Amino acid sequence: LIHSIGRQIAAKSQDIDYIFHPRSVAVAGVSNEQENLVGFTLLKPLMDFGVVSKIYPLNPKGGEYEGLKIHHGLTEIPGPVDHVIVGIPASLTPQLMRECVAKGVKAVTLFTSGFSEIQSRDAKRLEDEVLEIARQGGIRILGPNCMGIYCPKTGLTFDTGFSKESGPVGFIAQSGGNSITGIKVANARGIHFSKVISYGNACDLNECDLLEYLAHDPETEIIIAYIEGVKDGRRFSRVLKETVETKPVIIFKGGLGEAGARSTASHTGSLAGSDIIWDGIIRQAGAIRVYSVDEMVDVALAFLHMPAPKGRNIAVIGAGGGASVLAADDCERAGLRVPPLPPEIQSKLTKFTPEVGSFFKNPVDSQWIVHNPEQFADATIKIVSDWEGIDFIILHTALEMFVTQYLDLKQTMLDEIIDGFLESAQKSPKPTAVTFHPMVSERLQQAVNSKQQDFFRAGIPVYPSLWSAANAIAKFVQYHNSSRNGH
Amino acid sequence: LIHSIGRQIAAKSQDIDYIFHPRSVAVAGVSNEQENLVGFTLLKPLMDFGVVSKIYPLNPKGGEYEGLKIHHGLTEIPGPVDHVIVGIPASLTPQLMRECVAKGVKAVTLFTSGFSEIQSRDAKRLEDEVLEIARQGGIRILGPNCMGIYCPKTGLTFDTGFSKESGPVGFIAQSGGNSITGIKVANARGIHFSKVISYGNACDLNECDLLEYLAHDPETEIIIAYIEGVKDGRRFSRVLKETVETKPVIIFKGGLGEAGARSTASHTGSLAGSDIIWDGIIRQAGAIRVYSVDEMVDVALAFLHMPAPKGRNIAVIGAGGGASVLAADDCERAGLRVPPLPPEIQSKLTKFTPEVGSFFKNPVDSQWIVHNPEQFADATIKIVSDWEGIDFIILHTALEMFVTQYLDLKQTMLDEIIDGFLESAQKSPKPTAVTFHPMVSERLQQAVNSKQQDFFRAGIPVYPSLWSAANAIAKFVQYHNSSRNGH
Repeated sequence: LIHSIGRQIAAKSQDIDYIFHPRSVAVAGVSNEQENLVGFTLLKPLMDFGVVSKIYPLNPKGGEYEGLKIHHGLTEIPGPVDHVIVGIPASLTPQLMRECVAKGVKAVTLFTSGFSEIQSRDAKRLEDEVLEIARQGGIRILGPNCMGIYCPKTGLTFDTGFSKESGPVGFIAQSGGNSITGIKVANARGIHFSKVISYGNACDLNECDLLEYLAHDPETEIIIAYIEGVKDGRRFSRVLKETVETKPVIIFKGGLGEAGARSTASHTGSLAGSDIIWDGIIRQAGAIRVYSVDEMVDVALAFLHMPAPKGRNIAVIGAGGGASVLAADDCERAGLRVPPLPPEIQSKLTKFTPEVGSFFKNPVDSQWIVHNPEQFADATIKIVSDWEGIDFIILHTALEMFVTQYLDLKQTMLDEIIDGFLESAQKSPKPTAVTFHPMVSERLQQAVNSKQQDFFRAGIPVYPSLWSAANAIAKFVQYHNSSRNGH
Repeated sequence: LIHSIGRQIAAKSQDIDYIFHPRSVAVAGVSNEQENLVGFTLLKPLMDFGVVSKIYPLNPKGGEYEGLKIHHGLTEIPGPVDHVIVGIPASLTPQLMRECVAKGVKAVTLFTSGFSEIQSRDAKRLEDEVLEIARQGGIRILGPNCMGIYCPKTGLTFDTGFSKESGPVGFIAQSGGNSITGIKVANARGIHFSKVISYGNACDLNECDLLEYLAHDPETEIIIAYIEGVKDGRRFSRVLKETVETKPVIIFKGGLGEAGARSTASHTGSLAGSDIIWDGIIRQAGAIRVYSVDEMVDVALAFLHMPAPKGRNIAVIGAGGGASVLAADDCERAGLRVPPLPPEIQSKLTKFTPEVGSFFKNPVDSQWIVHNPEQFADATIKIVSDWEGIDFIILHTALEMFVTQYLDLKQTMLDEIIDGFLESAQKSPKPTAVTFHPMVSERLQQAVNSKQQDFFRAGIPVYPSLWSAANAIAKFVQYHNSSRNGH
């Protein structure tokens, strides 16, 4: 039975695969003014990515946009049009939808707002009318009130600044703005995407359809989701559960309290639902719940880079006594165990590390991390991680702690520390996360940012703070514990 | 009675005021090698700050450090020496202390580690010996195992990169590293200090002495404290309570759990104590408890800039629908109220703000914040804050949301948004915090960083995230509520 359901879902999800592979895209609502919102928000990014070969701006007034002819209407376009991105006023969309049907368009992204989210009866009626035309004409709709699709491989995008590289993370986001911030935060942390879908009011394609699709998408290994509300809670529970059986799902639910719910209604016309019910649905499905865009990315990084853990025992190794105290606190507060190293491990460490200004009990505070990175990687990390009582390692150093004049004196020091961390983490036999906390000065930020991709390619997650590292690993462990217990 | 206790404390705390005003400072353990740790960590910053006019490097071997003669010993120095900063090995400190007594030195900072924090009987005995010499010779000790004093006004510092400007925040820190990160994070957020004291093992001057001093220091309006452990819990409870009666105290306790306590013992020889007891002491005293360096700075910013609040009602005004949902969630999660705006206020707003893509219920999502900052400050902010149901405002915008090509198109846009926020916040009749969240791209970070001081001087706290703003304001409100109830 499960097998046949799987096949059913696969079949169904494949149904919408074509929306990610349009041969040609038209963008309606482009004018020839340079500051035209639809032009620079929706059309320009497609042109800049340069993968979609046939791009047609549309406007009944005609004209030209950065060298591209603006067509007066769909009928004027010679070949087939697979996807239309719509940025014209809401009241004009039914007419355009009829033209789409006539042209044989397969999918429409409705960027346009002013539908059910403004909570007037007329606007709701308009949304229903547009959906009805689409259903009869066999067109699938994304939105309204959304940014649509970002798929680096096929060149669909809604921001020129997004990474052109594909990656293993799929992302569905009910909010256009939060999809943009999520992608930018993730890109900056080294994460690339298979497909991102901003789906707004979800009048047709909704979170369930999209989760089902991503569940069976071979290009997606991890799913993150920003959701404000669902219309069919029962279906959502079932789909979420089935999706988690195929790959990890990280859920960021927007609209928790009274004011949050008020906002989701105005934002995407969503009923936020009770927070307790959401918590139950997410827990029962075995998904992971997060509470911010940053946390969503933190947790995704752990899933991307770390093998399934055996337990929740962590060794904290770093430079800085005060930083070590904070590291221990953050790990325990997140729910990890920081077990004391056995005396024989400690005495191995004391043999080659100066006793003054160091400690060895876990946290391990070792100056070698800074002053002798080579020996650190080969000895300290190895000795600690050889102990079976350890499942993870956090490698940290308070970069700002290195007094300014030290860095001024030894210009290469920063790069040496960062490279030393990369090497140590790579040599570490246990899954290892790295954090350089805090980074307030621009030279530290730039030094770490410039190496972000190296860490990512080496499979080492880098976190902006001890807490974010500890919390991400704790949620990762929790997920695997709940999987083992059959959710 | 209270009055006389106050006077007693004042008298006592004035006793140590001289340690912040040395006429001359000697630094022991400087060698003439450029990469000499004591030289570049302790001596160079004093020289670079250039306020202390008489600085004497010390080393029995003599020599020269960057143009300064290294004296062979204290007796060789012609005039009086008020303060000696000690960076020689622990075993040699008793002899140096005797020389200090002979020279009439008033205070000693023991940077040197290898005393009680390494938890050996010999090291503890050495610490006791040093203290005994100091007591008999009338010398006060900071440390051992500490960075000492940063006092911009009198030129004492342990990092060249610290701000040379004085400010109203006093900071005591048991950890040297955490004092450095705390100062750097605070400086970057616009906060300047009256006095910072890194006091390490606290063999002589401890957190109680320093709190008492800062409580009566006219240059200090707000106190922040990083503490790992106290030796006399009863005295600490009393001093903390008395200090809170004079000014707000924000406490960051390091060493919460099992591993944390293990670390504080190795780090500063401190008994971490039970977390529950600490929580009780802090709450009974009416101090504010925080859990990270960043949170410490977040909360300090609220105290620096905001008048005592009437209640916990906040209006969230920004650009971005998804961002507004998250803002509402974060405020409610932090314990603030986000009350719905009355219909008459909403209808005033709808009169001049386009309905599509905006909402007005609180959160208020208004595109004017970006597209017409002038009208935004004069109209939106004014209408909302005139309503008596609001005690605070958070002004926010998801800067990363502005699609890259928009910023490319309009290079001045970022500065206009940031300046518009500054103007709006300044015109706001209600206390207003600002957040540009998130900022991952370098151009956004730089644009906001470059204006940080303008906001600070205008008395507007700027937060790195919605959560940090909401949490800081919530703790600020909580403090004032507990003050009103007599703690």
